[in-house]
Amino acid sequence: MSEADNLVISQDPTHPANLIPELCRLFYNIGWVTGTGGGICIRDNDKVYIAPSGVQKERIEPTHIFVLPYPQVQSPSPHTDRVFLRRPALDLKESACTPLFWNSFDLRNAGSCIHTHSQHAVMATLLWKGSVFTISHQEMIKGVRIGGVGKALSYLDTLVIPIIENTPNEEDLKDSMAAAMEEYPDAAGVLVRRHGVYVWGLDWQKAKTQTECLDYLFEIGVKMKLAGLPTILEEQI
Amino acid sequence: MSEADNLVISQDPTHPANLIPELCRLFYNIGWVTGTGGGICIRDNDKVYIAPSGVQKERIEPTHIFVLPYPQVQSPSPHTDRVFLRRPALDLKESACTPLFWNSFDLRNAGSCIHTHSQHAVMATLLWKGSVFTISHQEMIKGVRIGGVGKALSYLDTLVIPIIENTPNEEDLKDSMAAAMEEYPDAAGVLVRRHGVYVWGLDWQKAKTQTECLDYLFEIGVKMKLAGLPTILEEQI
Amino acid sequence: MSEADNLVISQDPTHPANLIPELCRLFYNIGWVTGTGGGICIRDNDKVYIAPSGVQKERIEPTHIFVLPYPQVQSPSPHTDRVFLRRPALDLKESACTPLFWNSFDLRNAGSCIHTHSQHAVMATLLWKGSVFTISHQEMIKGVRIGGVGKALSYLDTLVIPIIENTPNEEDLKDSMAAAMEEYPDAAGVLVRRHGVYVWGLDWQKAKTQTECLDYLFEIGVKMKLAGLPTILEEQI
Amino acid sequence: MSEADNLVISQDPTHPANLIPELCRLFYNIGWVTGTGGGICIRDNDKVYIAPSGVQKERIEPTHIFVLPYPQVQSPSPHTDRVFLRRPALDLKESACTPLFWNSFDLRNAGSCIHTHSQHAVMATLLWKGSVFTISHQEMIKGVRIGGVGKALSYLDTLVIPIIENTPNEEDLKDSMAAAMEEYPDAAGVLVRRHGVYVWGLDWQKAKTQTECLDYLFEIGVKMKLAGLPTILEEQI
Repeated sequence: MSEADNLVISQDPTHPANLIPELCRLFYNIGWVTGTGGGICIRDNDKVYIAPSGVQKERIEPTHIFVLPYPQVQSPSPHTDRVFLRRPALDLKESACTPLFWNSFDLRNAGSCIHTHSQHAVMATLLWKGSVFTISHQEMIKGVRIGGVGKALSYLDTLVIPIIENTPNEEDLKDSMAAAMEEYPDAAGVLVRRHGVYVWGLDWQKAKTQTECLDYLFEIGVKMKLAGLPTILEEQI
Repeated sequence: MSEADNLVISQDPTHPANLIPELCRLFYNIGWVTGTGGGICIRDNDKVYIAPSGVQKERIEPTHIFVLPYPQVQSPSPHTDRVFLRRPALDLKESACTPLFWNSFDLRNAGSCIHTHSQHAVMATLLWKGSVFTISHQEMIKGVRIGGVGKALSYLDTLVIPIIENTPNEEDLKDSMAAAMEEYPDAAGVLVRRHGVYVWGLDWQKAKTQTECLDYLFEIGVKMKLAGLPTILEEQI
Repeated sequence: MSEADNLVISQDPTHPANLIPELCRLFYNIGWVTGTGGGICIRDNDKVYIAPSGVQKERIEPTHIFVLPYPQVQSPSPHTDRVFLRRPALDLKESACTPLFWNSFDLRNAGSCIHTHSQHAVMATLLWKGSVFTISHQEMIKGVRIGGVGKALSYLDTLVIPIIENTPNEEDLKDSMAAAMEEYPDAAGVLVRRHGVYVWGLDWQKAKTQTECLDYLFEIGVKMKLAGLPTILEEQI
Repeated sequence: MSEADNLVISQDPTHPANLIPELCRLFYNIGWVTGTGGGICIRDNDKVYIAPSGVQKERIEPTHIFVLPYPQVQSPSPHTDRVFLRRPALDLKESACTPLFWNSFDLRNAGSCIHTHSQHAVMATLLWKGSVFTISHQEMIKGVRIGGVGKALSYLDTLVIPIIENTPNEEDLKDSMAAAMEEYPDAAGVLVRRHGVYVWGLDWQKAKTQTECLDYLFEIGVKMKLAGLPTILEEQI
């Protein structure tokens, strides 16, 4: 065991290297990260814990976790674009979501970011054909914070989540996601059309509960739209 | 450990402080209390056990439980509105549902009250646009008791659950919930539009099984309405 | 512990008194027996193991199980209608399904019978408005046996399950269920309108897998009908 | 314990005889293999591990597993059509999918093949009435490999999965499945109308994650079609 392995070996169940596998198992069971897609990263001050790419998310072990410095350190070599505090011994690559997770740290000072391929999110991006998903007058809106990291929305607030267009390479979403975050500073997440959603929070608990609230709102919004019910009450428009 | 902590530390799995975390994990898994919403309280004669507000309901520990006296004791200080027999050491607040749970104790002598954000309940409040949800001729109606605490309904009874309008602050539902309980003394629960449902029973088992029956009836009622099937048989109207 | 308790205390996980609680937990998790409804009984030659009525089916213990003789023994007293080999010490009543389970023993020589309140079954009884549910050309038909206890149906057979009308008291279904079993000797189960389904088999494994096949067929039949797809292929009519 | 039993007795959780029961339990819980249908086989070079036919897939034990030689050995007797390296002591028959699993080994050099009765697959075969299921512009397409064993598809590729017609005997699908694999060399699976799907990969991990991706695509494709949304974007046609 190398010294760097100490960064991911801990008896503490709330250590990020233990939490990421546990949460990915939960997310797998609720259909957010099947087929190796999606995941969660956790930032603990100057260290970022990230799962590997292209693996079964419900079978991650703490020793599979990558640790990166925050803020990002310029790679000394032109052949590698990232510097790691710790890499798994196995032949694994860090999650392709890494630059997108980084948006949440750099632009929102988030402590955790979650990416799901939830079908509720994808269906929302198909039924809301413009650049935003909106819903009003749902109790679960109160579980979402302004910008993901501010104070909680009120029941009287309309939830607005921007939708960006998908790209063939996940990394290429970085700039359009950042642009959406700048255009919609109050949004707690960014939907990606035909793909899924990114949601962040000050810590993993808030990122997770906000993802649950948003996923619930995507799901009930889709149900309402298919049932012919308005998702924005008229007095709110 | 303070003396008050003895109120929540028990080896007995049926102690309210052990049951609430266990039941909240179950309710989380079936989608009733995701995103920190919803929960259950249990009254054991003169003691009321209540979960904290705004936390992940599937990760509650017995030590997070509040214990309040029943009936409520007038707070001696104008700065605090409730008196507790036991508060968690952590910086937690009691569930915002507390005054609504209290309605079930005061108006129905209930021993337990459950609040869910189930999408079946919310969809029912959107498709039944008036002040009541009604359904007849379903076997599951027999699992619901008159007023939640009386004798069981018959298969020939029409189930009627009042729907009240949501308010920005959960506490503000107290009066309209109480008014609905007075107007509909036979109802075993109260739906809150765009929010969820409150259901009670003489003990936690009956509160839980009645919530299951009502949730089943909301779900199948919604399916029937979307399929164009009548939810009240004509001879019943 | 009385001598009769030996009938339900066993280290063998396949003993009926251990299987019934385990299977009821499974059935609860898939939505077949929520709200205390539904259940399973197992007959081992001259002994019938039955769960109690009106309890949470996912929390049954082996000591809650009733054991009855088979065939039924005439009660010597006019005040009790059944003779038991073993009753739980608790104040419990045997399942209200008992006479219906008995139909499967007497008319089909079944070794196990399952009753569910599955919404797929109930929706099937609402969308198939006549006296039978029928579907053809589904691979899962091959998992169902003729009369529930004979040889397996072929992919080319049309599945026919009779639907009887519900009654206020579950016991009162006994005669109409028996009549349906006589009219449809090839059917592996009987649907009860607005209520659920009874399915039997030679042993608990076959009763369970047939219930799974039928529930799958009810579910996909409902989906097909709602999507406007024919559930019987024309060349089959 | 015979010497052949060593082929299925291992402390290693990743041994095929341990993996098959574990994965079948998972597949049961997500509705892929209820009612004894469906399953998974794993090939480890010259040995093929296969589950028994007609049993509860969530209750398989390692000792129930059949081991066959690969490539297949001609049976020396006209009365048996397969040679086994190891058969269970119980009266079990190897999965009826065996010749179909073999297609994936012989025609694609697969290391594992999965068969599900998922309702998403079956509904896809009912709503796509021609000889192929197609969908484009879904992120999950990237989790599928060309021919199941080649390089990953791009987001810009249209997913095409052939659909063959069902036959009364599962074994009789062998030739039409092989013909579809030859006609669609890039497809990672073959749908069987009114029955389910076969999906393969170089190893069990890739077979499983590809089945998850395809099942996700069947599910969202069905949802899109029922919602009136196009499943192929116009610029792709």
